[in-house]
Amino acid sequence: MSSTAKFMLMAQPSAPAIPHAEVLERWAAELRAEFEDLEVVIAVTDEEILKQLSDADAAYGVLPKGWHAPQLRWLQAPMANPPLGYFTPELAAHPVIVTNMRGVYNDHIATHVMAFLLALARGLPHYAHDQRNREYRRGVAPVLHLAHSTVLFIGAGGVAHQAARYLQPWGPRIVAVDARPETTSGGAIDAVFGTDNLEAQLPLADAVVMTVPHTPDSEGMLGRRQFALMKPTAVFINIGRGMTVVLGDLVDALEAGQLAGAGLDVFDQEPLRPDHRIWTLPNVLITPHVAMVGPDIDQRRFDLIADNCRRLLAGEPLQYVVADKILGF
Amino acid sequence: MSSTAKFMLMAQPSAPAIPHAEVLERWAAELRAEFEDLEVVIAVTDEEILKQLSDADAAYGVLPKGWHAPQLRWLQAPMANPPLGYFTPELAAHPVIVTNMRGVYNDHIATHVMAFLLALARGLPHYAHDQRNREYRRGVAPVLHLAHSTVLFIGAGGVAHQAARYLQPWGPRIVAVDARPETTSGGAIDAVFGTDNLEAQLPLADAVVMTVPHTPDSEGMLGRRQFALMKPTAVFINIGRGMTVVLGDLVDALEAGQLAGAGLDVFDQEPLRPDHRIWTLPNVLITPHVAMVGPDIDQRRFDLIADNCRRLLAGEPLQYVVADKILGF
Repeated sequence: MSSTAKFMLMAQPSAPAIPHAEVLERWAAELRAEFEDLEVVIAVTDEEILKQLSDADAAYGVLPKGWHAPQLRWLQAPMANPPLGYFTPELAAHPVIVTNMRGVYNDHIATHVMAFLLALARGLPHYAHDQRNREYRRGVAPVLHLAHSTVLFIGAGGVAHQAARYLQPWGPRIVAVDARPETTSGGAIDAVFGTDNLEAQLPLADAVVMTVPHTPDSEGMLGRRQFALMKPTAVFINIGRGMTVVLGDLVDALEAGQLAGAGLDVFDQEPLRPDHRIWTLPNVLITPHVAMVGPDIDQRRFDLIADNCRRLLAGEPLQYVVADKILGF
Repeated sequence: MSSTAKFMLMAQPSAPAIPHAEVLERWAAELRAEFEDLEVVIAVTDEEILKQLSDADAAYGVLPKGWHAPQLRWLQAPMANPPLGYFTPELAAHPVIVTNMRGVYNDHIATHVMAFLLALARGLPHYAHDQRNREYRRGVAPVLHLAHSTVLFIGAGGVAHQAARYLQPWGPRIVAVDARPETTSGGAIDAVFGTDNLEAQLPLADAVVMTVPHTPDSEGMLGRRQFALMKPTAVFINIGRGMTVVLGDLVDALEAGQLAGAGLDVFDQEPLRPDHRIWTLPNVLITPHVAMVGPDIDQRRFDLIADNCRRLLAGEPLQYVVADKILGF
């Protein structure tokens, strides 16, 4: 049972996370070849996009201001984790189903989490610091023995579940807190609690891994009070969004020895400014928002879009639906 | 069915890998309490050790020069991987069974391997280098996607097998070369080849992990010729013994781009001298022979010794036997 539909690729050159024009042309050609009931158009200017939206059933990309789309049933966001501004009040009020690309990078991001976690567990930041000073010194770095540890994920989404699968052979206790514990439990995570359980879980954790998106609820979710609750031997990783952590409070906690170390891929301001205090801490690893980098990303994005096109035409449920268009995840 | 036996703890203060005197006293007391048929003595000076060896059935530690032990049936080495000098011609000629402590550190060392491997896979050495310069730059570090990779272990002992178990969830192809492929196959390693297969396997590997002990056969096993066979995108890890790698040749290969990066815990001369060229390479991680560091080591050593004491008294096969007292492993 299938219907016909019009699908627009919105290709503003300035929009984030949209591939180059040649890639979009190839995607359009492949979609046309695969789905004869799908009309595929590419629009580049806001004017053209606004016009095409008047009768589009589905669209990929970032909606321009002033959009009006009476028939729009499906909007595919180009990001794994669209920023707060993507979810406007107009979008929340519209019946359109929004999907994101959250599955596309899970393995890369979860591998980055594991690289941070094992590096911190084996003291690599301290040794990297000594390496720059040509110092061969033992006893400078504490060891975190994962088999005896509790790892706490804040946010039990795809990244946390994939990281938990990687982590399982070490045998730690793996727990999470999540805004929707009832739908995110299971897999390699031993227990998922509600987010209101965060402050009860923090003092029990040997490693805390922040994976949550930036929402009004998560902004500044970890600050002075939360870092003070952690074990002084615990390590902290932020792989989600920089705005969820009060970075100055984290630096204070690290300098005061309230935490043993940190691995950070995201920051409240990116790029991280050169004069920030955090650059020189000996127990911190900094990477420049690259956890999602890895091979095959454009192909995986296309596969996700093509699968959702097939589902749209077949009347099947779409994949990677944003459950709450106000919260944005 | 049990017999009686005399077991000596050789506790020369200068011997490597022997715990503090108080620890040995506690071990002796615990062994006496557990095994009423075991006579346990501690000897500290060479003179005392030589005297006690005249009627000892078993001993833990390092034999002094000029030893003579007509009744010795079991010698427990205090190291996971005793150095070449431990296995003297006299020891090889004696019927005593030598055991080592190779199981005791496997999880710690394999975790260190994984910390190096994931750090290299995600470009952390490059970012650590940039961090010291307060540079927030993307695109400086290649990504090694483990799911599409072949990981080659040189030496398929306990460390390699444990690392392979940790590595399995990423889904790489895992192979090894080993001097005894027939007895080291299986587990999480997909295939173990003979050491004569090394040069055929090197060009196929995306990561090469050196885990072999230092023996006459393994000294300088990897040098200019072998590094030239590796992929320019491959990473190299040495977690075994420094003398198995010609370090100058490795630096040349890294500087020439014949390899993408390295993680090294052991060096041909330790401590690594401050003026060595390798300290400043941006794609290298250096740790000061600490892969075995972790909690519970003294307890694990004791448990291994106590288990072998039980086996000796019960006439059961000992654990962690050194199969070849000339090669030393």
